[in-house]
Amino acid sequence: MKLDKLILITSILLLLIFQANSKTTEGQTTKKQPNFIIIFCDDLGYGDLGTFGHPTIQTPSLDKMASEGQKWTSFYVASSVCTPSRAGILTGRYPIRSGMCSDKHRVLFPDSDGGLPASEITIAEALKTGGYSTACIGKWHLGHKKQYLPTNNGFDYYFGIPYSNDMDMVKGKPYQETCKLARVEDFNPPLMRNSEIIERPAQQATITKRYTEEAIHFIENNSEKPFFIYLAHSLPHVPLFRSKKFEGKSIRGLYGDVIEEIDWSVGQILNSLKENGLDENTLVVFTSDNGPWLMFEDHGGSAGLLRDGKGSTFEGGMREPTIFLWKNQLHSGVVSDMGSTLDLLPTFCSLAGVELPKDRIYDGNNLSTTLLKGKISPRNEMIYYRGQKIYAARKGAFKAHFITKSAYGGEDEKVHETPLLYNLDVDPSEKYNLAKEHPEIIKEIWQLVEVHKKSVIPVKDQLEERGL
Amino acid sequence: MKLDKLILITSILLLLIFQANSKTTEGQTTKKQPNFIIIFCDDLGYGDLGTFGHPTIQTPSLDKMASEGQKWTSFYVASSVCTPSRAGILTGRYPIRSGMCSDKHRVLFPDSDGGLPASEITIAEALKTGGYSTACIGKWHLGHKKQYLPTNNGFDYYFGIPYSNDMDMVKGKPYQETCKLARVEDFNPPLMRNSEIIERPAQQATITKRYTEEAIHFIENNSEKPFFIYLAHSLPHVPLFRSKKFEGKSIRGLYGDVIEEIDWSVGQILNSLKENGLDENTLVVFTSDNGPWLMFEDHGGSAGLLRDGKGSTFEGGMREPTIFLWKNQLHSGVVSDMGSTLDLLPTFCSLAGVELPKDRIYDGNNLSTTLLKGKISPRNEMIYYRGQKIYAARKGAFKAHFITKSAYGGEDEKVHETPLLYNLDVDPSEKYNLAKEHPEIIKEIWQLVEVHKKSVIPVKDQLEERGL
Repeated sequence: MKLDKLILITSILLLLIFQANSKTTEGQTTKKQPNFIIIFCDDLGYGDLGTFGHPTIQTPSLDKMASEGQKWTSFYVASSVCTPSRAGILTGRYPIRSGMCSDKHRVLFPDSDGGLPASEITIAEALKTGGYSTACIGKWHLGHKKQYLPTNNGFDYYFGIPYSNDMDMVKGKPYQETCKLARVEDFNPPLMRNSEIIERPAQQATITKRYTEEAIHFIENNSEKPFFIYLAHSLPHVPLFRSKKFEGKSIRGLYGDVIEEIDWSVGQILNSLKENGLDENTLVVFTSDNGPWLMFEDHGGSAGLLRDGKGSTFEGGMREPTIFLWKNQLHSGVVSDMGSTLDLLPTFCSLAGVELPKDRIYDGNNLSTTLLKGKISPRNEMIYYRGQKIYAARKGAFKAHFITKSAYGGEDEKVHETPLLYNLDVDPSEKYNLAKEHPEIIKEIWQLVEVHKKSVIPVKDQLEERGL
Repeated sequence: MKLDKLILITSILLLLIFQANSKTTEGQTTKKQPNFIIIFCDDLGYGDLGTFGHPTIQTPSLDKMASEGQKWTSFYVASSVCTPSRAGILTGRYPIRSGMCSDKHRVLFPDSDGGLPASEITIAEALKTGGYSTACIGKWHLGHKKQYLPTNNGFDYYFGIPYSNDMDMVKGKPYQETCKLARVEDFNPPLMRNSEIIERPAQQATITKRYTEEAIHFIENNSEKPFFIYLAHSLPHVPLFRSKKFEGKSIRGLYGDVIEEIDWSVGQILNSLKENGLDENTLVVFTSDNGPWLMFEDHGGSAGLLRDGKGSTFEGGMREPTIFLWKNQLHSGVVSDMGSTLDLLPTFCSLAGVELPKDRIYDGNNLSTTLLKGKISPRNEMIYYRGQKIYAARKGAFKAHFITKSAYGGEDEKVHETPLLYNLDVDPSEKYNLAKEHPEIIKEIWQLVEVHKKSVIPVKDQLEERGL
């Protein structure tokens, strides 16, 4: 047979297959509610993935996810530290509204009494009203007393550690050095399944691997009902751990090993979706809770070209490397419009056909037309809180800093009578202050802050009380 | 017909096509000498492309090129300023060997008398011995006196400006401000075709577009013979210009417009290769001559997570965002091993079956097994020159700084009795000095510098004499 005839016949056959196949899957995909998976890292820097510019950390799965999906380059968290950032992503509301941020203690500690109030509605609770199965796998950090655990916040299943992996340190050791040594025996966090402690100290070397297995197990056993998995890795927060297979794998050192294991995990989860025929019906989001913990030097990540890191209200603290994937559904490409973890709740509810409760203020926007059709993001503002104080705000391209302070610790809070003003589209590194040139923009930003402030109703500070 | 049978038959047919096809093309591709295209930017920062982490500059063509080809993340130029960097890429030798670097003047100026000595062999001259057609399109900057022009250095064709686009400034104007204003009439560089001036001042707004058209024209008219195109964009060097179509296109501002036009240009060239059936037989390399010119603030680029920029021997000055593409021939992925523009000449010669002249020292390595098979790069060392002085050297992961100095201008040269030592794999931002921990590595690096120094034969400084 000649080559051209062969090509012709094959093309016709391919067309038939394509038609047959679209008929089979159409009924399944367009009418079904999509599954959602959030992969949430801990202290990952903006510059720590290959596709976000890191030269020596190899992240082939995330790079591929970015080139096939949507890579968001101005995606914000609700706070630059753990607890309030997590309250933000799960409720779609700035943590000031739930009392999950504080000027006294920045996060919850093992001796804290508070947690996410029962009155708050998490993504899991919202999706459950739409018939979803839900799982929280990984670090929680929204209250470890029984009433605050994931299983009391809309999650059918929980497997993970209830707070940060550096807490519960064996007493009397120097904090920073001990974190850098990264010995399992120096830390005593519990590993829980649902509301039971099943291991203490959590064997952290295998924790990323075990989270991954748990997530895959949940996917395999929930292919009948729509599901939501909140996979909140407890790493790359210090102390850094990775499983045997990843020891010395990365030329970036221990921190690189940890990220490369997380990248492996992403690949495993995407494979599992494919194998279970769920990849065209599952929206996966990859991001992190806050920027890199710079004081840990090579045990912390890199914010790339962004200024500062974890704890700070400069971009390095609050802008995270974010990737969405939903096979054959997303308008793939790079999105430099603003988005936020606050937007996930309204977006998921919209895609799942679940109505948002009308009794409260949401700070999130519905990103679905940006995801599905490539339209401009509806988000045009961002408020940067440090504890309960507003340090900065962004409107369009411009960000004004009213207060600045060193990233972590430090007593150098500086109130700027004339705020610092940066054009983040032109100057993402926040180098060139434009306050003199644009007083009118500062005024506009003040106004949006005033409007926001009026919408905040004072609530009990959940982080304040410790060791009672 | 049932779906599984249809798939089976189609698979068999596809296999037949594949076999038939490999037989047809094998004879064409493996025996033919490949074409080479170098796309060389001017002052592009390590962090200025989407795939290297820039949040607001949209570079879809380069991002795609990176995900399909090989993205090199530790790729070095021979110098952190124009003239010596260009001497390095075209000769495969450190510019100290050709006299194309100087402590007195960093680059050639319109009143300079020198240029690349006739005794040097450029990539174009080497490939011509293998029967190649050659074109230089864009900025030359290796001597503008007749004997030094591209057409006297192995290029069949030249179209471009002979030195930087900020030179020949109208007299009496303040330099930095005038560059930032970016008005065509303030600059008077000539545009040349072969050895004739065809336009003065060069109409820079359309220059990227015209370079692109020239390159495509050369591709279309040279599909019979193997070819080498050295496309050296004169941008994003200040003053910044772009054509009408790109005015206000980028939210990054003027600098972003310029990069997005260069990205468009890359897309046009790759399309042209495809349309002319040459994409499987052409190796394309994209890189730049040195890091971003930071003193020009938002008119200069970003080195991403790397330290410092143009003019400096920190990484931001000399490490460039580099991408190789050769359809169906490259071992695609991210390469974090070292490579250099110095390696292109030996690599091209090897792939073209041209023997390297034996009468001189080459500083380049043959990268072809890394490109084609994904093997470890043969480059394990790099010398960082500033003018004629060695400021730093890298061996494996470690880099020692013997001398440091502000990027551009500045009189703060500092000789380090104990060199600064950084592990670039772990610490690409050169933050954590490890000199105390690793005196033995400093010794090793000293030794390689000594060996290198012994190989250098003093030659005439081509940059020294001006305005005679």
